Amino acid sequence: MAELSAASNTTVPTIKYYLREGLLHPGVRTSATQSQYDESHVGRLRLVRAMLDVGGLSVARTAEVLSCMEDPSRSLLSMLGTTQASVTVSAADEEALGGRPGSHEVDELIRRRGWRVSARAAAREIAGDVFASYSALGNTDIAVVIDQWADAAEIAAEADMQAVLARGNRSDMVETVVVGTVLGDVLIGALRRLAQEHLANKYFPETGSPL
Amino acid sequence: MAELSAASNTTVPTIKYYLREGLLHPGVRTSATQSQYDESHVGRLRLVRAMLDVGGLSVARTAEVLSCMEDPSRSLLSMLGTTQASVTVSAADEEALGGRPGSHEVDELIRRRGWRVSARAAAREIAGDVFASYSALGNTDIAVVIDQWADAAEIAAEADMQAVLARGNRSDMVETVVVGTVLGDVLIGALRRLAQEHLANKYFPETGSPL
Repeated sequence: MAELSAASNTTVPTIKYYLREGLLHPGVRTSATQSQYDESHVGRLRLVRAMLDVGGLSVARTAEVLSCMEDPSRSLLSMLGTTQASVTVSAADEEALGGRPGSHEVDELIRRRGWRVSARAAAREIAGDVFASYSALGNTDIAVVIDQWADAAEIAAEADMQAVLARGNRSDMVETVVVGTVLGDVLIGALRRLAQEHLANKYFPETGSPL
Repeated sequence: MAELSAASNTTVPTIKYYLREGLLHPGVRTSATQSQYDESHVGRLRLVRAMLDVGGLSVARTAEVLSCMEDPSRSLLSMLGTTQASVTVSAADEEALGGRPGSHEVDELIRRRGWRVSARAAAREIAGDVFASYSALGNTDIAVVIDQWADAAEIAAEADMQAVLARGNRSDMVETVVVGTVLGDVLIGALRRLAQEHLANKYFPETGSPL
């Protein structure tokens, strides 16, 4: 276990905790005090850390995703959907859909793009909430940008799918969804700001006099 | 003031607080107990609420952006830059740049795209931190997706710039930067998830049997 700890950069008490909670499969016992761990344990620890530390999932939710990952009766699509939903915080999971402010605009957008998505997707609610916030500010900018933002989202999602497809097995695919979705949000936001700065320099070349 | 409160959906104590803190300009006094407010006050309140509630800026930072907005010696570019930086949280404002893990990959990306951005942009550090997190996980997916994410970011930023240019004056432009940047992050993230779901349905059609 000391070697597994060093190889995975995870403390021994943390490894014992994951073993107790069923997040990590036991090693092969070789003596009363020793067990043999292998690459599968290092890989699983990396996945568990990604779900807990990067994805911000609870231990219970992590166990749920892992068991769904290992259930051979769950299709790949349903497994990836569960994983994505786990890293998509919904403000109002329990509320009825459809009557929420902003949901009409989101429905219209989805129809316009021909996107095939579940009526209960948490991301629909989040998008509807953003529309409602824009309207509450009396702000109409969103109509100017929404279709281009959807173009951008589609390009990002296309890259995401290629990254998932490039992974060889279910556990690596789950890791790609968790890490790519959560870190991707932050990185795409940072890249958007850098691109904004670049375009601002392009559109508003400094002339010495204020515009 | 009661009318201003109703028109702006802001309570009277809150309006008085903004007046004290200099976030709102005084009305024209018409008697010992009455002042006249106009559309400029309604607009300013909307902007202040956007900076505080949507952008999550502190009162001090909001006052700073407002004073920069009203300083005729500040160019439009510098004003928009200050505003954008204010809604870009940097994990390590005080740390030296360049030696941070991940910063080399970000420098390379910026060079590849020909982006003209400041060496001190907070978004550079954030992007570098994400690269470092990916590496810490032993994850190499980022190399597969980073250029397409940058394409997506550029398309979103182009739409952002058009929305800013469509606004007529500095105060509306600042509002567009604050609201568009912060709510845009959330909305683009939600649209990315919807597009992922759509593409997953397209690439992995359910066949009844697990893949």
